[in-house]
Amino acid sequence: MTVQTENVPDRTAFARVYAEVQQFYAWHMHLLDSGAAREWADTFTPDGVFAPPSAPRPIVGRDALAAGAEQAHAELRRKGEQHRHLLLSVNVRPQDDGSLTVRSYAQIVATPRDGEPRLHLMCVTHDVLVRGADGQLLVRHRRVTRDDRA
Amino acid sequence: MTVQTENVPDRTAFARVYAEVQQFYAWHMHLLDSGAAREWADTFTPDGVFAPPSAPRPIVGRDALAAGAEQAHAELRRKGEQHRHLLLSVNVRPQDDGSLTVRSYAQIVATPRDGEPRLHLMCVTHDVLVRGADGQLLVRHRRVTRDDRA
Amino acid sequence: MTVQTENVPDRTAFARVYAEVQQFYAWHMHLLDSGAAREWADTFTPDGVFAPPSAPRPIVGRDALAAGAEQAHAELRRKGEQHRHLLLSVNVRPQDDGSLTVRSYAQIVATPRDGEPRLHLMCVTHDVLVRGADGQLLVRHRRVTRDDRA
Repeated sequence: MTVQTENVPDRTAFARVYAEVQQFYAWHMHLLDSGAAREWADTFTPDGVFAPPSAPRPIVGRDALAAGAEQAHAELRRKGEQHRHLLLSVNVRPQDDGSLTVRSYAQIVATPRDGEPRLHLMCVTHDVLVRGADGQLLVRHRRVTRDDRA
Repeated sequence: MTVQTENVPDRTAFARVYAEVQQFYAWHMHLLDSGAAREWADTFTPDGVFAPPSAPRPIVGRDALAAGAEQAHAELRRKGEQHRHLLLSVNVRPQDDGSLTVRSYAQIVATPRDGEPRLHLMCVTHDVLVRGADGQLLVRHRRVTRDDRA
Repeated sequence: MTVQTENVPDRTAFARVYAEVQQFYAWHMHLLDSGAAREWADTFTPDGVFAPPSAPRPIVGRDALAAGAEQAHAELRRKGEQHRHLLLSVNVRPQDDGSLTVRSYAQIVATPRDGEPRLHLMCVTHDVLVRGADGQLLVRHRRVTRDDRA
C-alpha cells in the first residue's frame, strides 16, 4: 500500500495502542454490564476517579467504584433490565507522560425483560488511561457528559 | 510513545488480528444485510454452526445458513424493512490452537421504508473464528443471546 | 499466536491504516457534532464532495461544506438538540492509487435537551479517503444512503 510511507514505526505503535484501547473498553464494560462490580473497579487505578453526570461529586477509589457499580446493578436486577455500555467513535491521543487521553461517544442501551431495547443515554466519555505494573491499561480519570444536559 | 515498551511483537500481532476481526465483521454483516445470503454463508466454515436465540435448534452448514438468511431477507423485503447488524465492543481472545474467541455486543437496527429507525434487538454474540485455506477468517461457531430474554 | 503466519508486513500495514481510519472518523465527526464547521470542512480535500441523501445536489468544496455544517448546527442549537454521528462497522479497502475506499454504517443519534435520545437516521456511508500533504487522511468523496429511502 503506497499510503504507508511515513513514520511507519510510530504509526505501528499507534495501531497497537488503538486496538488495545478498544479491547480494554469492551472487556471493562462487559464487566460492568454483567455485574462483576469488583473486577470492574479493578480496571481503574487504586485512586481512580469517575465523575459521572448524575452523581453530586466524583467517585474515588476502587472500593467506592465497586460499591456504586454493585448498587446500580442490583437496581437493574430488581427492575428486570439489562444495560449495555458501548464506548464508540474512540479518539486516542498518547501523551508525553505515557498516559492516553481518550474521548469516545458512549451509548447506554437498556432492554427490559421481554421488552424492546431503547437508547437510554447518549454521552461523551473523557478518559485518562495509564498502565499498571503489568502493562495493563487502567482508568485513572473518567469524566462523562450527558447529551440531554449539554 | 513511552507506553509501548513491553512485548511489542505480541502486541503488534494482536493489533493485526484485532483490525482483521473488525474488518471481517463489517464485511460479513454487510453481506447479510444486503441479502447476499450465499456469500454470507460462505463466511462460515463448511460445517459452521449458528445458534441464534430465536431458532429451536442450531443451524449447521452453509446450505442451511444460506437458506435461513435468504428466507429472513425475503420477509424483510415483503415488510419493506431494512435491518443492519452491528457487532460492536469487540473482545478478541486468541487461543492456543490458532482460533479466536470473540465476544461482541450486537445491535440490530430496523428501518421501515419512509419510517424512523429503531433498535430492534440488543444481543451478545459469542464467536469462534478460524482461518480458511487462504488465511481468511471464517465463523466456525456462533452463539447469540438476547438481552430481552436474559 | 499461530494465526499470524502469512503476509505479516501487509497485515501490519492494514492494521495501521484501519486504526487510522477509525481515529480519523472519531475526530472528524466530533468536529461536526460540536459545531466546528470550518475545522470539519478542512478534513475534506479542497475540492471534496459530499453527496448527502437529503440535498438536491452534492456539496463541493470546503467553503460550501463549512456553510452547510454551520447552518445545520445553528438549526440544532435553535431546537435545543444534540446530534452525534457514529461511523461504525467500518470496511476499508486500500486501492492501488493509495486512496482508501471505506464503507461504514452510520448512526445519527439525536438527543433533545432534557429528553430521551433516539436513533434519528440509519445510513450507509461510502467514502474515498486520500492523504494530504502532511500524510493526514482527508475525505475526497462521500456518498450517503438512508435506510428509510432504500
